[in-house]
Amino acid sequence: MKRIAVYPGSFDPPTYGHIDVIKRALPLFDKIVVSVLDNPGKHCLFSIPERIKMLRSITRNFKNIEIHSFRGLLMEYARKKNATAVIRGLRVVSDFEYEFQMAQMNRELNPHVETLFMMTGTQYAYLSSSAVKEIAKFKGNIKKFVPSIVEKMLKTKLKI
Amino acid sequence: MKRIAVYPGSFDPPTYGHIDVIKRALPLFDKIVVSVLDNPGKHCLFSIPERIKMLRSITRNFKNIEIHSFRGLLMEYARKKNATAVIRGLRVVSDFEYEFQMAQMNRELNPHVETLFMMTGTQYAYLSSSAVKEIAKFKGNIKKFVPSIVEKMLKTKLKI
Amino acid sequence: MKRIAVYPGSFDPPTYGHIDVIKRALPLFDKIVVSVLDNPGKHCLFSIPERIKMLRSITRNFKNIEIHSFRGLLMEYARKKNATAVIRGLRVVSDFEYEFQMAQMNRELNPHVETLFMMTGTQYAYLSSSAVKEIAKFKGNIKKFVPSIVEKMLKTKLKI
Amino acid sequence: MKRIAVYPGSFDPPTYGHIDVIKRALPLFDKIVVSVLDNPGKHCLFSIPERIKMLRSITRNFKNIEIHSFRGLLMEYARKKNATAVIRGLRVVSDFEYEFQMAQMNRELNPHVETLFMMTGTQYAYLSSSAVKEIAKFKGNIKKFVPSIVEKMLKTKLKI
Amino acid sequence: MKRIAVYPGSFDPPTYGHIDVIKRALPLFDKIVVSVLDNPGKHCLFSIPERIKMLRSITRNFKNIEIHSFRGLLMEYARKKNATAVIRGLRVVSDFEYEFQMAQMNRELNPHVETLFMMTGTQYAYLSSSAVKEIAKFKGNIKKFVPSIVEKMLKTKLKI
Amino acid sequence: MKRIAVYPGSFDPPTYGHIDVIKRALPLFDKIVVSVLDNPGKHCLFSIPERIKMLRSITRNFKNIEIHSFRGLLMEYARKKNATAVIRGLRVVSDFEYEFQMAQMNRELNPHVETLFMMTGTQYAYLSSSAVKEIAKFKGNIKKFVPSIVEKMLKTKLKI
Repeated sequence: MKRIAVYPGSFDPPTYGHIDVIKRALPLFDKIVVSVLDNPGKHCLFSIPERIKMLRSITRNFKNIEIHSFRGLLMEYARKKNATAVIRGLRVVSDFEYEFQMAQMNRELNPHVETLFMMTGTQYAYLSSSAVKEIAKFKGNIKKFVPSIVEKMLKTKLKI
Repeated sequence: MKRIAVYPGSFDPPTYGHIDVIKRALPLFDKIVVSVLDNPGKHCLFSIPERIKMLRSITRNFKNIEIHSFRGLLMEYARKKNATAVIRGLRVVSDFEYEFQMAQMNRELNPHVETLFMMTGTQYAYLSSSAVKEIAKFKGNIKKFVPSIVEKMLKTKLKI
Repeated sequence: MKRIAVYPGSFDPPTYGHIDVIKRALPLFDKIVVSVLDNPGKHCLFSIPERIKMLRSITRNFKNIEIHSFRGLLMEYARKKNATAVIRGLRVVSDFEYEFQMAQMNRELNPHVETLFMMTGTQYAYLSSSAVKEIAKFKGNIKKFVPSIVEKMLKTKLKI
Repeated sequence: MKRIAVYPGSFDPPTYGHIDVIKRALPLFDKIVVSVLDNPGKHCLFSIPERIKMLRSITRNFKNIEIHSFRGLLMEYARKKNATAVIRGLRVVSDFEYEFQMAQMNRELNPHVETLFMMTGTQYAYLSSSAVKEIAKFKGNIKKFVPSIVEKMLKTKLKI
Repeated sequence: MKRIAVYPGSFDPPTYGHIDVIKRALPLFDKIVVSVLDNPGKHCLFSIPERIKMLRSITRNFKNIEIHSFRGLLMEYARKKNATAVIRGLRVVSDFEYEFQMAQMNRELNPHVETLFMMTGTQYAYLSSSAVKEIAKFKGNIKKFVPSIVEKMLKTKLKI
Repeated sequence: MKRIAVYPGSFDPPTYGHIDVIKRALPLFDKIVVSVLDNPGKHCLFSIPERIKMLRSITRNFKNIEIHSFRGLLMEYARKKNATAVIRGLRVVSDFEYEFQMAQMNRELNPHVETLFMMTGTQYAYLSSSAVKEIAKFKGNIKKFVPSIVEKMLKTKLKI
């Protein structure tokens, strides 16, 4: 039996923090399915295809990885992908609380998929997609926070 | 002197977590006034009359309970209802912080009404009205989280 | 039926923070039983009789109050006292977490006694019995933190 | 070398909590630059000139203080003002988390400006600009929370 | 390559909370090594062999599991066991903070072993070995919290 | 007027985290007084003179710094040193809560000394003196966490 994990997120845009989680999750599973959450109720800067494009470019040399998007209930999606686990990165206490509630709720919905939490590395603990967008908007230097393709696409998108 | 407590909330919609708090508060007071907060600034799925209807149906066999709505300052409302206490359910640390600030603020506004906190039972600690709406929207099973009248009204409202 | 609440604690020594909680709890119940926890495993500065003496002196003008000590399980004690509620003061998030666990555990042990939490007033939020002892030990001024009988007994005990 | 600190914020409107931080920061620096954040993406009740007017009026008897507004990256602004520090008030744990992330991010952007945190005094710990606006909206008494010029401008703005 | 995870702890004694974590971790790995931490600096009620005995008895019908004890650095131990992951159960925010620090520290010591966090099920979130010992000491009912072999050994140990 | 800040702590032993705070505090004040807390009630691995020796060695090239020890109330000590501020490093939320209480208490004791908080850099956020001692005890590599003089003195002390 292959062990598959889903790593869901908005990835608007992906940062070095997300890539750190992906790299560390890869040796633990036979396949990681990185899935961009398609949430029509939430306004995002990048379209779903743009986010998939960035993720595919960044991870093109990684093995045992797939990049997709999904809509609807995460647990339903995990079931369809034959996943045994969902991976979430934790940075701070407030992440923890929200994630704890989601994990318990999800366990009620599907007890066969386990939610696993990984701590984001300290050097990325302060990093969030929204902070990156805020800094880019004011022409701050974001090279430390995101890969070059993300930097380039951010500049194009923000017309900087 | 009768001891009256107000239990305010959005109840959009009421969940088993709210009902748990109501049941546990009833023996402590002579009357519980469950009050739906009418906040024009916040977008809710259900109208005030719909939320009152659900709460009345769920609690129709409870004694010493009234279901109303209110607008404006909670402490002003509590005074009008001759309440000696306001009841709040706590689930998580972030609830605690917000509630702590509100309780202190309210005490400044009216020191004669005490805010009492009850812990939501562990089995409902993960439960929130917004999570229930999210799951219902994607046709997930919500029978564990809300009474059948709420489930029915959610399905009608969301046209599922 | 009379409504009785137990307010348990170490009270080593009682501070203005404890007295604030007692004063605010009194109008909500027919009787408040303030109970000094007799925990042989924990080293305290004051003996049980000393702590009872201080509490009785401070509350001698309060009505509907009893001061006792107890040993063993709180829920067992509450049952014997015919209490419907246990009162706990919350100051900070770390209090909240510990108290949350205890409240859930106690509910498993005795679902007929409800744990109610009251926020300590902001002016006492920083106040703890151990901080008061620390300051007194180094001859700092503690008049703002404890009633005069406690100040006097602390000075005698610490030979200041 | 003069030591200059920037104290940034929305100040929509300024409260006694903000004034407490300013007063306590003044003796620590040669100049405090209070700067209203001009964030076009955030809806505020008062315009930038109104907020500057309130702050100038409240601090007119303070020495070594300047009131300005700024747009863009805080660290960029601090550099232009020759500031060695940015001051932030902390009230609660959730403030802490957000501020922690911002401070780390800002340190990456400009390691020569230090973020210093001061605890808001306990009597203002519950106080927030948004709570003040909410209470004013429902005609509650806000004299304890804001100076009279803020009260007056709030009433005019809300047509009370 | 077999995927092995270490699940370390004091297990003084093991509770249903620990067993919940073990059961949920088993399908994610090829082998789970449950390891009792032999910490001479910490006073425990049960000896290492007693704790191993309880764990072996409770998990005797589980597959792909080993019960051991270890002394020294966890990351060193994980390396010797060829583990790719260390599993930790999280119940509350304060767990999270401590565990976060340990996980980062451990990552510095050995970047090849990943720390994975699982949320303890809500029905066990309040449960701790020390609370169980406290309740047992005062003859409270602990059947809901621990398997019968643990209950029996606790009674013998505490001479109840 | 010279601006002096006290940076108190146990420093048992000093880590790169402490040194990071000292370095960042130096440009903000005319003098930093690093003070080892002499707390007879707390068991420490290193003696006061040993801790002073390590701190002096580490900071021998820093300007405007003094290394001392103190006993008693911090606010009393700050007053004697003519300090206008006390500096504390914050790493995590639980630090914050404890420090918040101490800062408020200290403000009651001496309103003329301000407590300033600095965030420990992310790369040291996980670092604590006790973790360093634990790792050293089991012969783990601590070169990343402490300067070489501390490493040497730790090895001598622990007879490794």
